[in-house]
Amino acid sequence: MDQLIKMIMFVHDGFEEAEALTAVDLLRRAGVKTDVCSMTGNTVIKGSHGISVFADLEFSDICDAGGKMESGAVEEGALADFSAITDSYDGMILPGGQPNSFSLRDDERITELVKAFDRKGKLVAAICAAPCVLERAGVLDGKRCTSYPGMISPDNKIYLEETAVTDGNIITSRGAGTSVEFALAIVGKLCGAAKADQIATRIMFRS
Amino acid sequence: MDQLIKMIMFVHDGFEEAEALTAVDLLRRAGVKTDVCSMTGNTVIKGSHGISVFADLEFSDICDAGGKMESGAVEEGALADFSAITDSYDGMILPGGQPNSFSLRDDERITELVKAFDRKGKLVAAICAAPCVLERAGVLDGKRCTSYPGMISPDNKIYLEETAVTDGNIITSRGAGTSVEFALAIVGKLCGAAKADQIATRIMFRS
Repeated sequence: MDQLIKMIMFVHDGFEEAEALTAVDLLRRAGVKTDVCSMTGNTVIKGSHGISVFADLEFSDICDAGGKMESGAVEEGALADFSAITDSYDGMILPGGQPNSFSLRDDERITELVKAFDRKGKLVAAICAAPCVLERAGVLDGKRCTSYPGMISPDNKIYLEETAVTDGNIITSRGAGTSVEFALAIVGKLCGAAKADQIATRIMFRS
Repeated sequence: MDQLIKMIMFVHDGFEEAEALTAVDLLRRAGVKTDVCSMTGNTVIKGSHGISVFADLEFSDICDAGGKMESGAVEEGALADFSAITDSYDGMILPGGQPNSFSLRDDERITELVKAFDRKGKLVAAICAAPCVLERAGVLDGKRCTSYPGMISPDNKIYLEETAVTDGNIITSRGAGTSVEFALAIVGKLCGAAKADQIATRIMFRS
């Protein structure tokens, strides 16, 4: 039997609903356990278009140190806890939307987690404005990637105007209108192209 | 100044998250006031992939008669209340997902509302399995329409295998992978093709 694949999505208020929830939806269809983790201290997270959603976890549920860091500044000793997170999950996902994307970028817990997942070669995926978090963490240097126009600098990267770009363990995508391509790219990376094609067919995408 | 356009989405538990929330997202981007109305008696509605969302309204908030009808059977006198709903909104939207779609189909409040909106020539939109609700209400006869494969009979209809089909006041679409096309078709019908194109560009859809 295949081992259960587990992904975690980190979310601040102002997340883009279609980007976040299409990814959760399609990953769960593919059998990937997908936890939505609120970074706000509240279980209910607020979308950028007024849709409020229950997160599966609060950050304090998975990280004692992080739970104490209301400012998002990483204190000494926290990195051990982050290692527990990167051991538990096969990768992390960041949806776009504002102020979510800039809140994620300015939240040192998140940029440290991006670095930690990346160091282990585990999947780091971001869509729309959220690739700016990956840029801040320094994991896009020399990589093929994309984003919402203007949200990352093309310097030191191979910037592509494609709906979803996979380079090794990094997946980036462009906006709410590329949510399905983003989700399918993650499914393809984790579960293989055949599973991604199966999901695409079942949801009537390009069929 | 343009008059505010208002849409209502009716939802039972087991709704397909991407289909429902992409429509709400894109309609609100277009400036359409969009109310998500729970038919379950609870404000929190549960998606078919485990995502729980706050509805904006419960049915009892907009319909006294409906609020008393837990079985979904329409009692005498309720149609006057339904008329108040069809006066207040420019149309209704039904997302797919199970058991949501069959719960909507078997909920006489919903089939009566479909008939009432249709009689006024107001927009009735359904995606994935939810066109079966429109079929039950009898508003698809002779119409160009689509659905998730096998969810409606092609008899007495012009069944098309297209991502989104508009025929007069009826819009139908196929599945979670056509959520953006469905939402843009609704925006196009309500706000014009230029607005739909503008939204499509902003979300990086086919751009």
